[in-house]
Amino acid sequence: MFDVLRGRRIVEGSAFVAAPLCVMTLAQLGADVIRFDPIGGGLDARRWPVTKDGKSLYWPGLNKGKRSLAVDTSRPEGREIAAPGDEADIFVTNFPAAGGWMSYDELKKRRQDLIMVNLIGNPDGTSAVDYTVNCAVGFPLVTGESRDAAATPVNHVLPAWDLSAGVSLALSVVAAERHRRLRGEGQLVTVSLADIAFATVGHLGYIQEAQLNPEERKACGNYPYGAYGCDFETRDGRRIYIVAITGRMWSELGKATRLAETFAGIETALGLDFRHEGDRFEASEAISAPLAEWCAERTLEQIELAFKGTGACWGPYRSFKQMVQEDPRCSTANPLFTGLEQPGIGRYLVPGSPLSFGASTRAPPVRAPLLGEHTNEILGRDLGMSDAEISRLRDDGIVAGPVETV
Amino acid sequence: MFDVLRGRRIVEGSAFVAAPLCVMTLAQLGADVIRFDPIGGGLDARRWPVTKDGKSLYWPGLNKGKRSLAVDTSRPEGREIAAPGDEADIFVTNFPAAGGWMSYDELKKRRQDLIMVNLIGNPDGTSAVDYTVNCAVGFPLVTGESRDAAATPVNHVLPAWDLSAGVSLALSVVAAERHRRLRGEGQLVTVSLADIAFATVGHLGYIQEAQLNPEERKACGNYPYGAYGCDFETRDGRRIYIVAITGRMWSELGKATRLAETFAGIETALGLDFRHEGDRFEASEAISAPLAEWCAERTLEQIELAFKGTGACWGPYRSFKQMVQEDPRCSTANPLFTGLEQPGIGRYLVPGSPLSFGASTRAPPVRAPLLGEHTNEILGRDLGMSDAEISRLRDDGIVAGPVETV
Repeated sequence: MFDVLRGRRIVEGSAFVAAPLCVMTLAQLGADVIRFDPIGGGLDARRWPVTKDGKSLYWPGLNKGKRSLAVDTSRPEGREIAAPGDEADIFVTNFPAAGGWMSYDELKKRRQDLIMVNLIGNPDGTSAVDYTVNCAVGFPLVTGESRDAAATPVNHVLPAWDLSAGVSLALSVVAAERHRRLRGEGQLVTVSLADIAFATVGHLGYIQEAQLNPEERKACGNYPYGAYGCDFETRDGRRIYIVAITGRMWSELGKATRLAETFAGIETALGLDFRHEGDRFEASEAISAPLAEWCAERTLEQIELAFKGTGACWGPYRSFKQMVQEDPRCSTANPLFTGLEQPGIGRYLVPGSPLSFGASTRAPPVRAPLLGEHTNEILGRDLGMSDAEISRLRDDGIVAGPVETV
Repeated sequence: MFDVLRGRRIVEGSAFVAAPLCVMTLAQLGADVIRFDPIGGGLDARRWPVTKDGKSLYWPGLNKGKRSLAVDTSRPEGREIAAPGDEADIFVTNFPAAGGWMSYDELKKRRQDLIMVNLIGNPDGTSAVDYTVNCAVGFPLVTGESRDAAATPVNHVLPAWDLSAGVSLALSVVAAERHRRLRGEGQLVTVSLADIAFATVGHLGYIQEAQLNPEERKACGNYPYGAYGCDFETRDGRRIYIVAITGRMWSELGKATRLAETFAGIETALGLDFRHEGDRFEASEAISAPLAEWCAERTLEQIELAFKGTGACWGPYRSFKQMVQEDPRCSTANPLFTGLEQPGIGRYLVPGSPLSFGASTRAPPVRAPLLGEHTNEILGRDLGMSDAEISRLRDDGIVAGPVETV
């Protein structure tokens, strides 16, 4: 938690990864967030991973530090409560908003300078999710073992496009707020998940390579295209990755392993110039052979010792469990993490914002709410309703909470 | 190009993906960017992919719309020219800045309210790159075919952590600028690439699952953990991905394929409730069998027709070449893209910002500069130097450009 966005109130109507991540990112920078969900929970209330009791670990992960309003927006009175307006003058959603009560034109009637950020799937408004976007942009056919590009695709597990979209949405909120502050004007920002992916492959040169070069890019296993990197097995059966992107990483690797002369021999034999990343890539297999031997003769601990204090760039592969058991970066030794109790689930590590603002003090992250935990507070304090009114809304089934979802 | 950040000038000293992407993202939102590089090009001037002439397609991809200053910062006079100050009051770098001339304390002497955003590798300042971060956070051991988690890792090809870091850096620039506008105070924002990854796996529930649940998460091929999705071969030898995240996607899939009754039979037989994502995941193989048959009987074109206008969520796998040949989203039919001539390379598709700001008009993206293309302009117009002074600096080898790097 930092306080750089203190004083901004954001309404969120969302589900899944990108939009909730956007608003949680802003909450962790100090924004006051109201997320509304249907009574009983939204589309993502039960998402996996889950505990052995079936409680979602996903939902509290992406909704930290938000206030939760449980409200039935299928009824006009519920919409009136959920909709942005007054001080809650920023709205973020990944719901299909065009045409309905959540459309910008409708919501703008409540607040003329409203900022609304709407994540859509495809640019034409049809649905797309991370998986259907990723298969369109080439990566699954070049992931994994070297093979014919037409062979079985290997999907990425990380929802990278959702993540990139989530942070991009957050950027667009703050940029639109800047515009409003300077020019007094709200706006609708539309972001297509597919466009996030297509723009990125365009920024990284994949589109241009496909247009200009005759050959199709092929899978090259764990070698990073155009640079040197490889995975190795250690004497004690662990796996590590060694990479040399910069000239310094390369020379330090030679020094730390005492293989500099061997590498120079390979360089001469192949007629390449290992000062250049691309030349090191072309010699990937030749470079990896002596390194594989070097690693196979050493335990992970010995390798760690050999690389410590050098400029060589490497790291061990870790499973998710090894990550939490072994890596001090994934522990409260890292100021990023705090141990928190999540009601109904238990105590676990919770990350705050990875952005460290020097002019603010890092406060611990705030846990996720129970569904509807802040319903009363939002109706009473934010919307100025009387206790009697709130009771009536509860009796009528317009609002509810707090409840533990399963 | 949008103009939401018009009037802001940013200095960039960087290389590789995250920091250049951050600043290019801001340039495409209207910021005026000066990227300085060594005479002859920086660490990433020749990065792959390259054309058959060895020209980098990567560098112009990540430096669109920036002004380029070629300057020798190993000499004090060069540093004086490159350093931020006056109107250029935001500095973004991924270079090791602490202690040297690029440290915040040093640069602050030139402009008291400077904003500096510094990307570092590990939180302790040691080096880390996308590959060594990704192997630490579990994904390579659960990517690809179902297998023992200790088996050979499969790296992701997309530098997802660099991408997420790049957009996060951009967010931190705009958030810090907001803070300065409201409170008159600059600051140093520090972001660790490793923290970006650890925060994300924490947000997505992986850390908490590893802490609370006894079993290690296993690779499950192209099935998305906790939801239904699968890849299929078509009659004409293409591959597609079908996914059902929401209840609507699931029911529309049943309708469009006329397999709803078959699915209901599976549901009953397995004692599951397919209204829940997790239950559909548990039945992944059973659901996939009739779908595989359905796909194998149809060409890609027939499948497209069957799904068109329905709420089913699917997409074809495409190689990078198929992407530019087949997908209208990756063409000038999509307002995201413009055909541009990049000097020394040729004409190709160039994406603008995927964020569509309703209050601004989308202008075409601006091509990348040649190295040092704006050296004269920056020295003369921005820094107010005379032609004689500029000539002297060129003669002394302090500045140069424009040149085509190879």
